Amino acid sequence: MRWSQLYVPTLRDDPADAEAVSHRLLVRGGFVRQLMAGHFTLLPLAVRVRSKIVDVIREEMTAIGVQEFLLPALHPAEIWQRSGRWEVMGEEMFRLKDRKGAELALGMTHEEIFTVLSQELRSYRDLPQMWYQFQTKFRDEARPKSGLLRVREFTMKDSYSFDVASEGLDRSFDLHKAAYQRIFSRLGLPAIAVQASSGSMGGSASVEFMSPSQAGEDLVVRCRSCDYAANTEKATSALPAVADSPALVVPERFDTPDARTIEELSRRHDVPAVSQIKTLVYVVDGELTLVLLRGDHNLVEQKLIDTLAAQTVRPATAEEIQSALGASPGSLGAVGVSDVPVCADEALRGRTSMVTGANSDGVHLRGVSVERDIAVQRWADLREVTAGEACPQCGAPLDVVRTIEVGHIFKLGRKYTEALGVSVLGPAGDRVVPIMGSYGIGVERALAAVVETHHDEKGIVWPVAVAPFTVAIVVLGTKDAKVAEAAETLYRQLADEGLDVLLDDRDERPGVKFRDAELIGIPYRITVGARGLAENTLEITTRATGETQTVPVAEAAEQFRKQLTGAA
Amino acid sequence: MRWSQLYVPTLRDDPADAEAVSHRLLVRGGFVRQLMAGHFTLLPLAVRVRSKIVDVIREEMTAIGVQEFLLPALHPAEIWQRSGRWEVMGEEMFRLKDRKGAELALGMTHEEIFTVLSQELRSYRDLPQMWYQFQTKFRDEARPKSGLLRVREFTMKDSYSFDVASEGLDRSFDLHKAAYQRIFSRLGLPAIAVQASSGSMGGSASVEFMSPSQAGEDLVVRCRSCDYAANTEKATSALPAVADSPALVVPERFDTPDARTIEELSRRHDVPAVSQIKTLVYVVDGELTLVLLRGDHNLVEQKLIDTLAAQTVRPATAEEIQSALGASPGSLGAVGVSDVPVCADEALRGRTSMVTGANSDGVHLRGVSVERDIAVQRWADLREVTAGEACPQCGAPLDVVRTIEVGHIFKLGRKYTEALGVSVLGPAGDRVVPIMGSYGIGVERALAAVVETHHDEKGIVWPVAVAPFTVAIVVLGTKDAKVAEAAETLYRQLADEGLDVLLDDRDERPGVKFRDAELIGIPYRITVGARGLAENTLEITTRATGETQTVPVAEAAEQFRKQLTGAA
Repeated sequence: MRWSQLYVPTLRDDPADAEAVSHRLLVRGGFVRQLMAGHFTLLPLAVRVRSKIVDVIREEMTAIGVQEFLLPALHPAEIWQRSGRWEVMGEEMFRLKDRKGAELALGMTHEEIFTVLSQELRSYRDLPQMWYQFQTKFRDEARPKSGLLRVREFTMKDSYSFDVASEGLDRSFDLHKAAYQRIFSRLGLPAIAVQASSGSMGGSASVEFMSPSQAGEDLVVRCRSCDYAANTEKATSALPAVADSPALVVPERFDTPDARTIEELSRRHDVPAVSQIKTLVYVVDGELTLVLLRGDHNLVEQKLIDTLAAQTVRPATAEEIQSALGASPGSLGAVGVSDVPVCADEALRGRTSMVTGANSDGVHLRGVSVERDIAVQRWADLREVTAGEACPQCGAPLDVVRTIEVGHIFKLGRKYTEALGVSVLGPAGDRVVPIMGSYGIGVERALAAVVETHHDEKGIVWPVAVAPFTVAIVVLGTKDAKVAEAAETLYRQLADEGLDVLLDDRDERPGVKFRDAELIGIPYRITVGARGLAENTLEITTRATGETQTVPVAEAAEQFRKQLTGAA
Repeated sequence: MRWSQLYVPTLRDDPADAEAVSHRLLVRGGFVRQLMAGHFTLLPLAVRVRSKIVDVIREEMTAIGVQEFLLPALHPAEIWQRSGRWEVMGEEMFRLKDRKGAELALGMTHEEIFTVLSQELRSYRDLPQMWYQFQTKFRDEARPKSGLLRVREFTMKDSYSFDVASEGLDRSFDLHKAAYQRIFSRLGLPAIAVQASSGSMGGSASVEFMSPSQAGEDLVVRCRSCDYAANTEKATSALPAVADSPALVVPERFDTPDARTIEELSRRHDVPAVSQIKTLVYVVDGELTLVLLRGDHNLVEQKLIDTLAAQTVRPATAEEIQSALGASPGSLGAVGVSDVPVCADEALRGRTSMVTGANSDGVHLRGVSVERDIAVQRWADLREVTAGEACPQCGAPLDVVRTIEVGHIFKLGRKYTEALGVSVLGPAGDRVVPIMGSYGIGVERALAAVVETHHDEKGIVWPVAVAPFTVAIVVLGTKDAKVAEAAETLYRQLADEGLDVLLDDRDERPGVKFRDAELIGIPYRITVGARGLAENTLEITTRATGETQTVPVAEAAEQFRKQLTGAA
């Protein structure tokens, strides 16, 4: 491809609204333009990268025997109503009516619609089936941001597996897990496989693939020593035991008009946070619930959702709290509370001599024995792991890493096949409800994540496997016939070998050409200029290292091929 | 690919709801399933065909220098409002609101959104630009039907050209026209390029590519002798002159209580249809309009729309007619009408001694001289051409052919660039508004049109270029180790050569295997069975002709390659 015939509107300056590195570089490099918040146009360079990512994913799907489908993006409401997710998806689902008034949804995922197709399967002999597609997903995100990282419309590779029994599901799941690891490795994305919450998908287990990046929205807890890794939504840690003072017989009230926070109570009344109970009030699917944590711990809302199998949770308002407990935040507690369910973090189990609010403004209780004095309905892991805590597997210190979710795979169980009435003839002549898995990769997010991982101060540094072009031939002095001819010859030679070559034949200054090639991240640059040709040489520059090699013109193609093979 | 690992749910019987051949065969052959009216899932076989069609189109777009983009499918209402099409598109456009109440449209075409991108072009030196994408289009069709032929959601290849002046547009248009002819030829689609109406696109000219099929919704008029071809929406013909009787001085009333139709008037009062005026009453953009045609001619509504640059037309109701003309259909006429605009077909020009209704039930007028007695505001070509009429170019008889529209290209002019404020620096330092073209092919409709063209009573007969597999190796007796091994060897041999081979390794009876291979339309079948192997032979059968060749096992691959090259 000749640069003069390629539309690459590079910009001199960073776009004002871009914070994430990938957003900034993809706009500046002429890869993407925003139509409206959360909706991007891919320009020709981005289309080339996207297509290479799609090819990598397709190859790995084919290799494990997943078959490609293409399902509609518009769905009848009725099918989503049958699975119950018409309600669950809330505002994140785009909804509309057609000219006849029928209710429709824009697909945000395709569990329901693939399950409808599986209704045609007749016998256990038709299983397992693994099906996938590349299809646009639409999600009405509350806050689209970071360029391609969080959008309202994107291409997803989504697969679905149907098996007779859970051993089959384990196999389909493991095949996908291994394929995903190969995909991210081929894309040049370091992806940590972590245990994660299944969220609105339902199901028994899920693994996320998380790529470290400052632009990420997810925190991952990872052991420095063993293979333990989990999303903070799911992660836990080993806590050292706390030695409590001897217990009081009954809790004792004391005045604390000057202490409305954990920190004030600690400082002004000499009660360490570790000996305090943090009392939070939530509304869980419409019902008020007390959530208790150790004073120095923070709640992970997703853990609360998962523990209570809740559809929605939100902090209670000041009015709701006042009317239920008769006090304001700062003096709340669960001692003696019997009409509101209490959910407590495991770190409080067995603790004595604790301090908590007395449900009377400006008053706290001390000497509280949690299990004796509080009617805990539900014990669960609810707290957020922090860096430096001990690995639950091996005890080594844990790191907390900011990451982008680049893939997510789920063991779904029979939620969708049951809801949509799918069953096949079983081996024993009985009816069997197939068990499902689902597996997703966001294509444009993966593209942006590659940029988050591979860039420097000059621009993007694409890995060869996904680069829009493998090499740019930069012609210095396009009007010099000898230079133009040498460049043209090399261009044809490399293109004929099937390489993606970009010939920069523009009538621009050398500085502009070098900066553009660096900004758009072409892995190699071959510079053809009069000065070199006088000595019968060209220069091959590697984008990632900046190293330049001077080679004889006649050997340029061969030398480049060697370098490429060595690097691949 | 092994058939045992491919999901091909063929059906024994035709689906009850399918009328079009392509619909019937694509469902029976396990290519597609309907999710809801107008929305289809493509199963693995169809995904393979679609991908080959996409590749052909992409190659031809690249060959003429069109660059691939990918634009959002969801659009802000505001951009469509600026072009005026937010209103024009009416019920055919799916509309919705997001969580914040912003109005959105699902893209039914992308003129507006590509034009927004062109706002970044700065100079005439940046032109011409030709841009395209493969993207899902959504259209809320009043009556989705005929399987993939008329749907509410489909993949379109849409291109857009931006040029400085009309000569540039002519070039971009001609490049696309030639590319489209190559594309349809490679897909095996006989496509007639015809003059067509531009409809809601606007612009000065458009050419449709029409593939003959009984399932088509469009009629094309084509000369048997010269290259004249046009959609009936646009077609015209040369009519022989009519010799009228001598004119009366004034029209004369006569009673016709027994004649309410052209045919009755002709039969009972001896007035040939050719000497009658047919008076139709339409509501054009809200205004009542009389439309006059010769008694034996029919109106083409699209011609009325184009003539009057109307956005909507509909026949008037009986009440509207009664209140405007004081009579009922059967006795309507335009003589003496001055408060309702009259639009007359060119075939009425200069005619005398005509008969028309008197706007009094059961009464007609005779001796009407059209130009003397009727206040015609607008003369235009409004009538439908019928088979056998004379070609307007050469006079030879015209045929009327039922067709499917498989492509449509438009010279758009400056409608969109003006509406969206696009201009570039011109060669003379002035500002120039780019002139546009747009060019579309519906991918899944092309797929169905290929089936409409290539099938027989046994099923589909795919052309090699778009076949899901080029050859099926049918194994007779999968449990015979020698047979299985011979088939396997040939399978690997052909697959290693890069051919799309399907190995039918299923444990099914020969009849089932043969019927399935024929139904799904694989162009070649190689049959491997014990009987042939005993004589060291295989059979190669051509799907289109049914011809079978017996060849020695050792020469099978080479023979097949020869046959394929000969056929390609």
